Amino acid sequence: MPHGGVAHRADQMALLAGIVHDRGTDPRYGELLSVIEASSLVADPEGAPAVNVRELRREFDRERKIPRRLVEESARVTALASQAWVEARKRNEFPLFEPWLDRIFALAREEADAVGYAGTRYDAMVEDYEPGMTTERLSALFARLESDLVPLVDALRSEPAPVVAREYPLPRQRAFVKMVAAALGFDFDGGRLDIGQHPFCTSIGPGDVRIGLRYYRRDFTRGFFGLLHEVGHALYDQGLDRTHFGTPMGDAVSLGMHESQSRLWENLVGRSHGFWRHFYPQLQTAFHDALHSVPLDGFLGELNRVAPGLIRVHADEVTYNLHVLIRFELERGLLDGDLRAADLPAAWAERYRRTLGVAPKNDRTGCLQDVHWAEGLIGYFPTYTLGNVYAAQLFEAADRAVGPLDEAFAAGEFRSLREWLGEHVHRHGSRYAAAALVERATGSAPDPGALVKNLTRRYG
Amino acid sequence: MPHGGVAHRADQMALLAGIVHDRGTDPRYGELLSVIEASSLVADPEGAPAVNVRELRREFDRERKIPRRLVEESARVTALASQAWVEARKRNEFPLFEPWLDRIFALAREEADAVGYAGTRYDAMVEDYEPGMTTERLSALFARLESDLVPLVDALRSEPAPVVAREYPLPRQRAFVKMVAAALGFDFDGGRLDIGQHPFCTSIGPGDVRIGLRYYRRDFTRGFFGLLHEVGHALYDQGLDRTHFGTPMGDAVSLGMHESQSRLWENLVGRSHGFWRHFYPQLQTAFHDALHSVPLDGFLGELNRVAPGLIRVHADEVTYNLHVLIRFELERGLLDGDLRAADLPAAWAERYRRTLGVAPKNDRTGCLQDVHWAEGLIGYFPTYTLGNVYAAQLFEAADRAVGPLDEAFAAGEFRSLREWLGEHVHRHGSRYAAAALVERATGSAPDPGALVKNLTRRYG
Repeated sequence: MPHGGVAHRADQMALLAGIVHDRGTDPRYGELLSVIEASSLVADPEGAPAVNVRELRREFDRERKIPRRLVEESARVTALASQAWVEARKRNEFPLFEPWLDRIFALAREEADAVGYAGTRYDAMVEDYEPGMTTERLSALFARLESDLVPLVDALRSEPAPVVAREYPLPRQRAFVKMVAAALGFDFDGGRLDIGQHPFCTSIGPGDVRIGLRYYRRDFTRGFFGLLHEVGHALYDQGLDRTHFGTPMGDAVSLGMHESQSRLWENLVGRSHGFWRHFYPQLQTAFHDALHSVPLDGFLGELNRVAPGLIRVHADEVTYNLHVLIRFELERGLLDGDLRAADLPAAWAERYRRTLGVAPKNDRTGCLQDVHWAEGLIGYFPTYTLGNVYAAQLFEAADRAVGPLDEAFAAGEFRSLREWLGEHVHRHGSRYAAAALVERATGSAPDPGALVKNLTRRYG
Repeated sequence: MPHGGVAHRADQMALLAGIVHDRGTDPRYGELLSVIEASSLVADPEGAPAVNVRELRREFDRERKIPRRLVEESARVTALASQAWVEARKRNEFPLFEPWLDRIFALAREEADAVGYAGTRYDAMVEDYEPGMTTERLSALFARLESDLVPLVDALRSEPAPVVAREYPLPRQRAFVKMVAAALGFDFDGGRLDIGQHPFCTSIGPGDVRIGLRYYRRDFTRGFFGLLHEVGHALYDQGLDRTHFGTPMGDAVSLGMHESQSRLWENLVGRSHGFWRHFYPQLQTAFHDALHSVPLDGFLGELNRVAPGLIRVHADEVTYNLHVLIRFELERGLLDGDLRAADLPAAWAERYRRTLGVAPKNDRTGCLQDVHWAEGLIGYFPTYTLGNVYAAQLFEAADRAVGPLDEAFAAGEFRSLREWLGEHVHRHGSRYAAAALVERATGSAPDPGALVKNLTRRYG
């Protein structure tokens, strides 16, 4: 956005947020919900009316507790802060962003106190992205991951990680990516693949799911794993029940569950031996100069390197959750006021040194790398790790039920996994809370055990 | 858009159109307008309150006459028809689009009859894009253009038009285009240049004017004249009074006036000798391989070729208005019902043969080439020619006042023209109707004389 457009956009965002808030908190809307809640429509708690009313009631009750002034101010401040973050990151100067960060966490505190919470303030934030999840459960989950993964990372750290620069012409990357998307089951009649500044997947409406991808001439895998990630999101959206579009029954249950679908296809499918037994010959044909002398195992070895780094979005599968853990801890400190914005860069560096053994030399590769806080997304990061946790459990269960999946992948067959996910996850929309959905699908409540086991087996 | 998204989008467009219509026709809104109209706020008819109320009243009164059902149906049908047009064009099969065209013109008839008109139905359509303009005046204007330009085209037709394919690397095109945009006065703090599927300029808000451009590796001029055209639109938007943003005083007066700005920079500046005396040496440096052996006059000769063709958007400056004339005549026939949609392809071919001496071999290069009718834009085409007419008059007046402009251009000086336009056109917003604005700025009412004189002098 040009500088000149920032202020007006902030005003527009505030106005829109206010209008949406007014509509979403209209007392008449609450009365109508009550009428349905008292009716026989909700007799079956797993039926669409009961599910929709339950979820809409939850959102209505939360929204009612937040004053319009706070909604507008949060929208205005985050619109301005996002631009300040862009500028601070470009110039590599955290102090430009620091006052905005203070303001954003102050607004989040106000919001948490307005909506209330049973345990800690952070519960009120997490609840917005992962209904039913608590700080306490997240803490336990991250503690387990830290104690199991840090030693694994340390054990792998010594291995050399050669970087080989090769040329992957962009038109061939686009053709290959499109072929793979179709093979995995992305429905091109109900979606598109296009080019974007950052990879994304967004659902415009039923039958219109858009993926944006970025390609890198000298790094095939970066663009390609972006595809697999976004296709995972897209298959969820395309697997939702269209007849319920626009209501919770036709919508994803939580951010963590959405992320589980993207991470499952990205990592558990896309880094598997079977997947590449099928696709690697085609990849070698498409990029003959780059890959004809690289054997399958060498290629897989490169894909599955573990190397602690500074940047979350470039992190490998094993260290990734430790990046999330650090943000989870720091944002709790910022929300509670234990950590001041001014002290964030030092705390960030210290935490990275301690957990991953690396420390950023500047703010751009440190605490300015993610846009989330600038956009007011506090309590959002843990959903990334929840996604990994759910994904490992779901994949294990699918493998038990319709596997061995690795052999199916090697035969170019992805339908059995996709249909299992459709049956056990996608079609339910928000019928069950994420934890209940995981338990119904896998037989176990959410638990990092499957993830740790999977990572240890593949990398240990 | 993927096929699967079309139906939902049509429903959304209809819903939005209905909501906007409800807001824009709310009786309370009319009452508030009446209060201001009866107050001293409107004492000065050229003051902002009077101008705003006058324009908002005009829109309100028109909108009140159109039933919500018709507004919704038009939005729904044009959303579906636009997709049908894409498909029909791709397959080169007019019959796929024919029933939609019938339906769209039937809805336009309904709208015209609902809002009423003094002369012909077509008046009601034109009024929406060029307030104050009439079918009668347009007919006279086009008759004059036809009688003067057809002989000119015939005289030029015999000249050979060699096409030379050269390579213009895209990164250098983008750099050159950006440099020229800045030189002409495009404010990059209040706007951006990006890449788009089709060239466009859109104003997101005050201080955020976006241009999208498409570049062609073997055709520098196609991308470049797209830039000049869109910069003309952008300078108008950037020259509007920001303090009046969102009201008629801060908005362009008409589509014709907007087009006058784009066509002025595209043709009267961008095809001039002075412009290229300044920029051609830089162009030769940027594209040495392609242009080092081409002298300035040779380059200008290529730029200013006249060759009757089938495609409006590829047309040269002299034949362009004849393409518009044909559409003006055909859409009047379709609106009145004299011409049936089924007969359009034949009528199109016949009219092209008669006026331009060429006839399309298929529908894609014939009556399926423009999206306008599919989008319900009936009465819109003439604003393109009004833009050319106004542009020639404005340029002549500016040249008298602050010229000789060609010499200024040769010195790389575009400010005097830009400021003259800012002073006489941009800053006024919708203060004066387009015709009055032309007359105030140039001393003459809108008249094709200046355009014919200009084209005859440069091409005759």
